[in-house]
Amino acid sequence: MSIPETHEEHPFNLIPELCRLFYSLGWATGTGGGISIRLDDKYYVAPSGVQKERIKPDDIFVLDANAKVVEMPRNKNVVKMSECTPLFFNAFTMRNAGACLHSHSKNAVLVTLLHKKEFRISHMEMIKGITNPILKKAMGFTNTLVVPIIENTNFESDLTASMAACMQAYPETNAVLVRRHGIYVWGDTWQRAKGMMECLDYLFGLSLQMKEFHIPLVMDD
Amino acid sequence: MSIPETHEEHPFNLIPELCRLFYSLGWATGTGGGISIRLDDKYYVAPSGVQKERIKPDDIFVLDANAKVVEMPRNKNVVKMSECTPLFFNAFTMRNAGACLHSHSKNAVLVTLLHKKEFRISHMEMIKGITNPILKKAMGFTNTLVVPIIENTNFESDLTASMAACMQAYPETNAVLVRRHGIYVWGDTWQRAKGMMECLDYLFGLSLQMKEFHIPLVMDD
Amino acid sequence: MSIPETHEEHPFNLIPELCRLFYSLGWATGTGGGISIRLDDKYYVAPSGVQKERIKPDDIFVLDANAKVVEMPRNKNVVKMSECTPLFFNAFTMRNAGACLHSHSKNAVLVTLLHKKEFRISHMEMIKGITNPILKKAMGFTNTLVVPIIENTNFESDLTASMAACMQAYPETNAVLVRRHGIYVWGDTWQRAKGMMECLDYLFGLSLQMKEFHIPLVMDD
Amino acid sequence: MSIPETHEEHPFNLIPELCRLFYSLGWATGTGGGISIRLDDKYYVAPSGVQKERIKPDDIFVLDANAKVVEMPRNKNVVKMSECTPLFFNAFTMRNAGACLHSHSKNAVLVTLLHKKEFRISHMEMIKGITNPILKKAMGFTNTLVVPIIENTNFESDLTASMAACMQAYPETNAVLVRRHGIYVWGDTWQRAKGMMECLDYLFGLSLQMKEFHIPLVMDD
Repeated sequence: MSIPETHEEHPFNLIPELCRLFYSLGWATGTGGGISIRLDDKYYVAPSGVQKERIKPDDIFVLDANAKVVEMPRNKNVVKMSECTPLFFNAFTMRNAGACLHSHSKNAVLVTLLHKKEFRISHMEMIKGITNPILKKAMGFTNTLVVPIIENTNFESDLTASMAACMQAYPETNAVLVRRHGIYVWGDTWQRAKGMMECLDYLFGLSLQMKEFHIPLVMDD
Repeated sequence: MSIPETHEEHPFNLIPELCRLFYSLGWATGTGGGISIRLDDKYYVAPSGVQKERIKPDDIFVLDANAKVVEMPRNKNVVKMSECTPLFFNAFTMRNAGACLHSHSKNAVLVTLLHKKEFRISHMEMIKGITNPILKKAMGFTNTLVVPIIENTNFESDLTASMAACMQAYPETNAVLVRRHGIYVWGDTWQRAKGMMECLDYLFGLSLQMKEFHIPLVMDD
Repeated sequence: MSIPETHEEHPFNLIPELCRLFYSLGWATGTGGGISIRLDDKYYVAPSGVQKERIKPDDIFVLDANAKVVEMPRNKNVVKMSECTPLFFNAFTMRNAGACLHSHSKNAVLVTLLHKKEFRISHMEMIKGITNPILKKAMGFTNTLVVPIIENTNFESDLTASMAACMQAYPETNAVLVRRHGIYVWGDTWQRAKGMMECLDYLFGLSLQMKEFHIPLVMDD
Repeated sequence: MSIPETHEEHPFNLIPELCRLFYSLGWATGTGGGISIRLDDKYYVAPSGVQKERIKPDDIFVLDANAKVVEMPRNKNVVKMSECTPLFFNAFTMRNAGACLHSHSKNAVLVTLLHKKEFRISHMEMIKGITNPILKKAMGFTNTLVVPIIENTNFESDLTASMAACMQAYPETNAVLVRRHGIYVWGDTWQRAKGMMECLDYLFGLSLQMKEFHIPLVMDD
């Protein structure tokens, strides 16, 4: 599935496009959030501390499977890649992901303030948009979706080990919430990762409104 | 009313455009939601499980009045049509609809959590945007709008029979809410279906804010 | 100030542009809302019952000062002008307005559910965006803005007399709220009318959040 | 770092672009809000009382370090510069800022209604997006962000002295909230000022939702 660099869905073009989308959704404001995509044996990562909605194809780093830079951005002013890179590689190496996405969505952050160890919800159509990576099939409407929550740290790279431990403890999850910070979501392809991010954010947002109306998030089957 | 395939309002072009709009309104995220439009004796349906906001004219299926595919999408990678198709055809066959729309709007889902069998509201200007299909005229400001709610199922196609039964029980409705899932809305034309979807979503959203302020949804005439 | 018809700020082009904006702000969904603009001695009015965000220059009616059509839309399919036209002409004839705008904003509707005869707010910077038409100067930060509320009717044209009576009773207002319906706002120019619509909608929205936090809307000077 | 006037990041082009963005975020509706950017030894300021989202390169004033106009807008109809100009120059002269931004965000206004002298929040990832100008480094996750609040006045220019006094009292702040009005944010570059505005608005919005859920804003370290 070789895609030419000029194609709109090559990571050089797709990452800037998705970053603009994420910015407009409030997931990547204030230089927060991030996107990494694998194509064949290369891993494409955005730079650190930049306005995500203004990233250009020339700003992207290319890494190999060992997270070693094999192509620096063509824009010579860009020297530092996203601090999320080790976290993205948790998904690439432990789950053979095709993409890993990171959002600072307020919905995700609020959910981590209202739930202790896990976010749980059942009986929602949008749960069907989540794939169970062990069973390799979509979750069902009556299933309980569980998203684990880890604690935040002062430095993003310090999250690497706890995210990895969480992924091992929760082999059926495609996502890890980080308390008072946001969420990491991955999938076999960027389409699946993005679709699951959208489903999760939708469910988080819905859960906040449900809480205001005193509606329980989990029902018996 | 023959429209050339290159025209912006031909279903090949209109379905992608409306899907982008629905995505931006939060009605079709995470590959959810859907749109089907009839033109002359052909029925145009989007593919299943794809990012709705990225659908292209070449991704659309063309069906006949018996819901049989008469033209596969020109994009050979697209092999499966929307799972909503039997539900869309409820509207086409039972109501002679020109379009049937499906949204996962959070407003619609929340309304199904707060109401048992029906959503009811009266004395709102936006009710005038709803046509009574029996009286064949617009509803009045003081009328009570009733939208029936059916229960969700694990598989979308399993909704077909209960949606049909609901449509028979509520001959004056243009819409069926599906609990913890979303809503189906249809109309004589895509313009009417879209207009009524907008009015309904507006009223659902308003009803949630009214509930927070303890304002009743239905008034005596 | 003659403006050629091809200019982006000629009403033929400006009305469609502002309708798209109003749609995106949620003020003109479901074919609701409306815009009318005067240029020299002509009055430009949008058609009735159409998707406001899809209006084109060829869909606009041109009227004279007596509200008589002097130019039909160039699009021959458009036969009926906005039902708001008599209400727009209240502003044109009683206040010599340059534009009159109508929105179905949920903020405006909710405000009419929470207040009886008038919406009142003081000590807000955005109040300075409102002009007092008697004093012919901007309101001050500590002034109390008063927006009167009239009752809705089954037919939009039936509002004409009560809106006119309200305008006479409130000579300092640039806007009339319609209960369970929306708001009419006018100004000397379309820029002023639009700016005041934005300020009012902002203040309505803010007032709803203030109510949730139990903060009074009006302070002593 | 000389940038040609035709470049998209020259202030002539950047100010209109950022004003459109701020309008779409609800920070600059009703002619409110404002943006000023320094490039080399020139200061670029938008006009007063205009629709911020429609500003064009020809509408921008150019000032020197003493806030004296050195180039009038090329659009001869524009005669008055933003009333925020003296406030912007507080940031330029007292902090050697590269840009100063002003927003009327509802989140900022609501925060000033809920807090007396200061807005405070801790243990949020987005706090890392704020630079401490004394320490010249990013704040940490567990740090308490403090944003001072000053009282609003009838005339914007009357805020100049109290904003300056506040900046002296709070040498570590990059922002001053104005009660019932909005916020001023500055930074070494326009990128930093914009990024911090986004982080602050995000934190203000989050704090309002936290208050609804009775979650304290500040935690012990």
